[in-house]
Formats: sequence, structure tokens, C-alpha cells
Amino acid sequence: MLEKANRSILLISRPEGMPSQDNFQITTNPIPNINEDEVLVRAIYLSVDPYMRGRMSGKKTYIDPFKLNKPLIGGVVGKVVESKNSHFQVGDIVQGYMRWADYSVSEGKDLRKIDPTIAPISTSLGVVGMPGLTAYVGLLDIGKPKKGETVVISGAAGAVGTVVGQIAKLKGCRVVGISGSDKKNKYLENELGFDETINYKTENVNEELKVACPNGVDIYFDNVGGSISDAVMKRINFFSRIVLCGQISQYNNKKVDYGPRMQQQILTHSAIMQGFIIRNYTNRYEEGFQQLGKWVKEGKIKYRETTIEGLENAPDAFIGLFHGENIGKQLVKVSDE
Amino acid sequence: MLEKANRSILLISRPEGMPSQDNFQITTNPIPNINEDEVLVRAIYLSVDPYMRGRMSGKKTYIDPFKLNKPLIGGVVGKVVESKNSHFQVGDIVQGYMRWADYSVSEGKDLRKIDPTIAPISTSLGVVGMPGLTAYVGLLDIGKPKKGETVVISGAAGAVGTVVGQIAKLKGCRVVGISGSDKKNKYLENELGFDETINYKTENVNEELKVACPNGVDIYFDNVGGSISDAVMKRINFFSRIVLCGQISQYNNKKVDYGPRMQQQILTHSAIMQGFIIRNYTNRYEEGFQQLGKWVKEGKIKYRETTIEGLENAPDAFIGLFHGENIGKQLVKVSDE
Repeated sequence: MLEKANRSILLISRPEGMPSQDNFQITTNPIPNINEDEVLVRAIYLSVDPYMRGRMSGKKTYIDPFKLNKPLIGGVVGKVVESKNSHFQVGDIVQGYMRWADYSVSEGKDLRKIDPTIAPISTSLGVVGMPGLTAYVGLLDIGKPKKGETVVISGAAGAVGTVVGQIAKLKGCRVVGISGSDKKNKYLENELGFDETINYKTENVNEELKVACPNGVDIYFDNVGGSISDAVMKRINFFSRIVLCGQISQYNNKKVDYGPRMQQQILTHSAIMQGFIIRNYTNRYEEGFQQLGKWVKEGKIKYRETTIEGLENAPDAFIGLFHGENIGKQLVKVSDE
Repeated sequence: MLEKANRSILLISRPEGMPSQDNFQITTNPIPNINEDEVLVRAIYLSVDPYMRGRMSGKKTYIDPFKLNKPLIGGVVGKVVESKNSHFQVGDIVQGYMRWADYSVSEGKDLRKIDPTIAPISTSLGVVGMPGLTAYVGLLDIGKPKKGETVVISGAAGAVGTVVGQIAKLKGCRVVGISGSDKKNKYLENELGFDETINYKTENVNEELKVACPNGVDIYFDNVGGSISDAVMKRINFFSRIVLCGQISQYNNKKVDYGPRMQQQILTHSAIMQGFIIRNYTNRYEEGFQQLGKWVKEGKIKYRETTIEGLENAPDAFIGLFHGENIGKQLVKVSDE
């Protein structure tokens, strides 16, 4: 699959509502030359993440928007194929934020070396990557689970939700996952050990939560937002923690979405609702990666990946996130190791 | 004003929407006899608080609802007129949760002795009482103000808001108060040193906040909720803290109120929204009361009270809270010291 030329996925227009193929274009350019201190990385896997939708809008949030007619940037794991940087050698497997392209040039500062003998390198984008770390920090540092508590997870079958649920089980919690398919829910219950699951597309979430959470909700790890959250918020306990990790149901809204006001519920339950961005927790990376790697190695945390082949199919993979097509981490395989 | 009989204000029906005189009734009974270890307290001032609206509904929240056809319970400061409890002597001024009545019987456990030589005894229900402590703990422990930050306060002219603003000024913050009258706002600016104020009844809160908070909002101390909060939430900064102390705009709602969903705003700003109930912070009472008393004595924190005379007018005073009739603490004077 090694290409002579370098293909890149550009954002050529900002999505309004649901993103479509029209927002993206693939272009081909020569493989770039590198300068002193730089490395050339051949992409092996791209990470496909819901948060990228935010960067496709023109608005600055916690991160700059993607520039139009420029390659998208995302999590990539790849191989160093040329190096003028003493810290990296040809053949090194590295992970970092790079272009959605066959090849990226990097100064190496933000690259993390991956040892391919420990775990499949794709896990550096998932269970032992940012999604796993997001689950780790969000649940442990913000959710602060205690044994016997009930943890509800929306988007439970995604790259983050699957790890949240398994860590919560390791901490002795009752874990309830909400996803959009029975297939996902079977996976969560049968393979990952979730106690209960709810299919928000076919079941009444309000009613099912009553059954699934007889002692109320102590931690709500929210990847989705919208009406699913409305239902969960009705059942929060005193001193509950609502961890805002994602709001995928809202990313394609064309106008402001209205819902029942939450403040009185939060107030009367002395609850905390907190948003977080994993990059503000760099001091937790080392511990988190080590612990996640250990759990994966011991079989205490399992993972699944949904992989689409071919850089040219990356926009499809991205659009598919909003249709709930992935179980676990959504990846694009760009080239062989 | 010492009465031979004991009048009490009963809740005779649960308000639907705005409370009215019809929900309350005054009855007269003999002054109760006390048993061993009890004291008889003659009420001097009653505290009139928005949170009592919650207890008038049938729903249990963090506190049991008031019972129908029983006297209301609230903050009271009064004088011990009979004692069979060795910790209290006739003549002691005490503060605690007692009946809205001329006389209450107490076992003394929850009574706090008040030294009337330090400050007017009414302040034990306001600036050096639960409202002051609520401001102290809410702002310092949850809001965590840093010098130079911008603090916005809704219900700014109330018993809690006035103290929050003044403590925030002592901590070097820019303080913006939102209230419902120009008279209140003049008081906040001219006497309490607020930097900016907004009259939500006559001004466009969205537009005025832009001007009043050129550097955004770091702490939002919310006593009100509803559309005022919608406007403030648009302007929160990264790592901002939203302290939910009250939601007075919502207490009389007959049905669920809808508003723009907040979660994405909280998420993308790594913000925290936290509700709190002062009674969960008993470990902070001693420090808080001491510090508030010191600030009041030094003139660093000023206060105002709105006092209605006569137990029989207590329901009016309570209903008046929802019309914004009070500046500072709303009290009912039941008898002379």
C-alpha cells in the first residue's frame, strides 16, 4: 500500500448539520521533504473522533477550528520512514496529532513512541490512547467512583464508554450502559460485564432507567447529551457527579437545542456537573497509560475496534460516527505496518 | 407585644404556582408547657427564605416537606423565657430552626446562643447567619475566587447575593450584580461597591453582560436561574465555576421549564456547575461565622434588612420574596427584644 505520492483529506466546506462527503476532498501531492530536526511519518491508522466535528465548525472553542482547504488533523499512529531528528529512528512506531494523509512531517515534539511488542499499535489510538485516558481521568478524577455506586454511561459502546464501564466495574460499581443497538448492548453485557444496558432507539429510557438503577444514579458519564441526558438527570442521587465528556447528539444541531432546565435538579441534589478536556490533564498521562496498558495486558479491560480500510474512506468513517456505526474505537487503516 | 396565647402560622394547602394567603392560616393556642431538658423560646425575628417554597410542595428533596395543618418551621431568633435545660438560662438570646409562632419549644440541641452585644440579634438570621454563611461557603469553597476574576451574581440584592458580592470584592474580583430594580442596583453600586449592575426587568441582560464582563465570567453565583442564567452561561470562561445556590425564578413553576441546553457550553469550557446546601458544610460554620462577624464589625461587609412587623404578616413577607420586594434580608419582627 506504500504510495509514491501523498494523498490528504481536506476540509473544503464547513458542515451545516450532519457532515457529508461534500465537505471533504482528497488531493494528491508529492511526498514532502523534511528539514533538520523533522521526521517523516507514514500513517498506519487514523483515529476517527466525534470531537473533530467541533473543529469543522468555524467557531473557536477550546481548540482552533480546522482551516478550510487544508488537511484534517487527528490522532495518527504511523511509522517513521525518514528522520533528521536524533530522537527518532527510521522504523520507530509513533503516535501523535498528524494529518489525515499518507505522510505527515513532524518536529517530533508531540510524538509518543509506541512499543509494538506490548500491544497492537492501533490501541495507541484507543484503549491505551486518548479515548482510554479520557475514560480513565474522567471517571476516576471527576466521577470519583465508590464501591457499590451506580454509574450510567451514554454512548456506552464507543471508544470511551467501553473503557469507562470496565473501569467502573473494576472499582466495584453497578454499571448501566446506554447505546443505540441491541448488538452493542449484548457486547457490553456479555463481553464487558456491564450490569444493565438500554437501547435508546427501541426502549423507553425513562422507564428502563428506573428498573436499571433501583438506587438512583451516582455517576453519569455523558458522551451524548440531549434527551438521553434528560432522562438520566431525573434519577441522580445526592452528591452525584455528572461527567461531561461528549455531546455527540448535539454536534450537528443547526440551532440551539432546548431541554428541561437542569439547575434545580443539580441544586437540590448537591450534584456536580463538570466538563473536561483530556489535554488539560497531562500530569495524569503517565499513570493512566501505564495502568490502562496493565489492565489490557491482564485481560481486565477488553476492547474492540471498528476499522475501515483506505484513507479515501476516512470521511465515511467520520460520518458513520453520527450514525452509531462503530463498536469501540473507529479507525481508518491507511497502510500496513 | 408579649402574648398571653401562642399564635402560629400553619400551612393549610400546598401552593400551586405562586403562593397566596389562602395557603396559610393563623391559629391561636395556649402557650405550651415544657418538659425536662426543654426550653421555651419567645420569637423575636423570623427569617423569611425562598428555600421554604420547596418545603411547601409535597415533594421530598434534600429536606422533608412541611406537613399540612402544622406550623411552618424556619430560622428564628428569640429569647429563652423558660428553661428546664441546664445549657440555657432565661434571658438567653438563641437562634435556630423553630416554628413560625410566638413561642416554640426546643430541646436546645440545634440552638445557637447569640451574644447581643456583638451585633444586632437580627443579623444572626442574615449577614452572620445562614444566608451570610451560604454566601461565604458558596463563593469561597465552590466558586474559589481569584484576584482579578469576574463574578456575576443573580439575585444580587438579596440576603445571600449582597454578601457574595462584598466577599468577592474583598478577594479582588470584578463584581457584576443582577437584580430587578434600579433602587437595588444603586444600593449595590453605591453602598456595597459592586462594579457593575444590570436590571433584568428593564435592560437586555445579554447585551449588558457583554459590556459589564469584557473578560467573560469566571464565577456565576446563581440565586435565580431561568433566562438570566441562560444569558450568563453564554459568557462563561474556561474553567469557570457556576455555583447553584438558588433558583427562585423556578420555584413557582407549574410545569417543567425549558431552556437552551447547557451541557455543551459547560463541556467546551471545562466548567463546573455545582449545587450545594449549606447544612452539608457544618465543618465550615465556626470559621464562617467568625469571619463574617469580623468583617461586619470592621465595616468591610455592610448589610441591610427589610423588616415586616407582626407574626400575622409573615405570609405576606414570604410571598413578597417572589416579587423582589426585599433588599437584603427579609425578616418578620414578632416581638421586642
